[in-house]
Amino acid sequence: MHNTTILMAHGAGGRMSRELIRAVFAAHFANPGLAPLSDAAVLPALPPGALALTTDSYVVQPLFFPGGDIGKLAVCGTVNDLAVSGATPLYLSAGFILEEGLPLETLTCVVASMAETARAAGVQIVTDDTKVVERGAADQLFINTAGVGVVPPGLTLGAARLCAGDALLVNGTVGDHGLALMLHRQEMAFQSDLESDCAPLNGLIAAALDAAPGQVHWMRDATRGGLATVLNEWVLDAPALGIEIEEEAIPLRPAVRAGCEFLGLDPLYAANEGKAVFAVAGEAASAVLAALRAHPLGENAAMIGRVAADHAGRVVLRTPYGSRRVLPMLASEPMPRIC
Amino acid sequence: MHNTTILMAHGAGGRMSRELIRAVFAAHFANPGLAPLSDAAVLPALPPGALALTTDSYVVQPLFFPGGDIGKLAVCGTVNDLAVSGATPLYLSAGFILEEGLPLETLTCVVASMAETARAAGVQIVTDDTKVVERGAADQLFINTAGVGVVPPGLTLGAARLCAGDALLVNGTVGDHGLALMLHRQEMAFQSDLESDCAPLNGLIAAALDAAPGQVHWMRDATRGGLATVLNEWVLDAPALGIEIEEEAIPLRPAVRAGCEFLGLDPLYAANEGKAVFAVAGEAASAVLAALRAHPLGENAAMIGRVAADHAGRVVLRTPYGSRRVLPMLASEPMPRIC
Repeated sequence: MHNTTILMAHGAGGRMSRELIRAVFAAHFANPGLAPLSDAAVLPALPPGALALTTDSYVVQPLFFPGGDIGKLAVCGTVNDLAVSGATPLYLSAGFILEEGLPLETLTCVVASMAETARAAGVQIVTDDTKVVERGAADQLFINTAGVGVVPPGLTLGAARLCAGDALLVNGTVGDHGLALMLHRQEMAFQSDLESDCAPLNGLIAAALDAAPGQVHWMRDATRGGLATVLNEWVLDAPALGIEIEEEAIPLRPAVRAGCEFLGLDPLYAANEGKAVFAVAGEAASAVLAALRAHPLGENAAMIGRVAADHAGRVVLRTPYGSRRVLPMLASEPMPRIC
Repeated sequence: MHNTTILMAHGAGGRMSRELIRAVFAAHFANPGLAPLSDAAVLPALPPGALALTTDSYVVQPLFFPGGDIGKLAVCGTVNDLAVSGATPLYLSAGFILEEGLPLETLTCVVASMAETARAAGVQIVTDDTKVVERGAADQLFINTAGVGVVPPGLTLGAARLCAGDALLVNGTVGDHGLALMLHRQEMAFQSDLESDCAPLNGLIAAALDAAPGQVHWMRDATRGGLATVLNEWVLDAPALGIEIEEEAIPLRPAVRAGCEFLGLDPLYAANEGKAVFAVAGEAASAVLAALRAHPLGENAAMIGRVAADHAGRVVLRTPYGSRRVLPMLASEPMPRIC
């Protein structure tokens, strides 16, 4: 590899594509399942259980931000989508769309970060693809990951399992990812050491499920749109129930609180990349909370509210002064290209 | 959906994202496995056999071309990558990156085409994702598809199975996709009715495998870089063997031959999106060829050459005059954004 930037030829399927694959992708993603060049990866039969399949594209700007980068995000996001579905994440695919002129060093850093995050999460990136578009036809680098996992037999999660009286838990402070990116973009990074919470949650989620078998009823990672959007989606899918959360119980970093006040944002709608919400049978709440807190990614876990038979179809926030207000579904989360 | 173009809010995870998903994706991709909104799809356990996983991103320009569009391509390409690996394609994921301002009608046409192609191929699109980037940060619309399939127990394909004496078959005329796009871009479409060969090959490939169980040794779809690139990759992976092909035996449409002469291109390096190369045990060649020709996508199938013990590591073309020349691995195929 004598070139220092990406050229159109790197995406054209000839010798230069092959060199890029060997020098960058095969070098970092090395694992027994990695597909040789353009073929599909052929892997052992999956363990028993339901197949889980998910995909996300990542277009975050900037590519590197406090606490992470687009590569780490692309692995964590897809691992977390599998994990909150109850699946053990096993294999990822990775598709790259590169802008002509992208420094090869940028790509290499991102790919190395993906490989490191995949190792940390215990998943294998087994197949990849690269396309190159002309300068100006894409903004630097986009990544798509798809993920395959297996849901153990007997585990069922979802709207049909949500019950009045379920406790709502979150594994730590909310809004860190969204605010870290917004402050970084505003060049106010010097004002705080706030970092994205970007992390693979599969280990934490496995611990939560083990702590109270059959008692976790639903999980969701609170990414785009934040905590308030996830809870609103839950009551849309289970419209006979309501959700009541306690403002004071929601873990919030002082830097997120201050940043939100400065920027006029609500942290409950700010993106997270390492936070999940758990609906847990009331009697199992303390066991699951203890399991979350015992995990390094759950030190600040908290019970933030309950599923209720009243307020059907609504998410209601109780303020410290005892008043209640409805948290609506927003038309859009006001932070573009956050993931 | 009152908007006629894509807005940033359609990718921001709130109410407008949900409306877009319902109006466009859920409406067209409707199937029992389709993941509700942002979750992973949870599907029945796979049938016995090895898991196959593949991914490709699609950045073709223009989005609509004679014989296909980016949506049809995104389904066929991934189905074909699975099929040539010996897998029965089952499930696809679809990730969309949209440029702000994209007409909603364009997206709807592409999604409808994906759905129609998936039905024709017998696969289900079970999970999707949409990101929107600002005007100028992407060129209209990019699609990533990942695909999951199962390789039946006992089926092994690949370099280790390639033998001297294997016959090389192709299921029809080469270069149609690449030339159809190039001529269309040159606004010379009026000069020919050449169309892309874009098609899902899983049915044809199943017929070929059934015709001579265990006798098909290797398959590859001849996409970017065309027939010559696939054959060069084969000898790179099986360097003790050579490949000899007969120029006269390679099926070529007159319009492709004429277009290549006009544009100074070699049809053997031009992309195909509905053509696969098969290495088949010599004694089974006529049975597999008959099976290919009996399929609607294989009417023009031909035996184009043989794997040989000489010319190790090289692809050699025999001209009608009896002379031989080496077909090299090109640095890059000279047609950008062909898929």
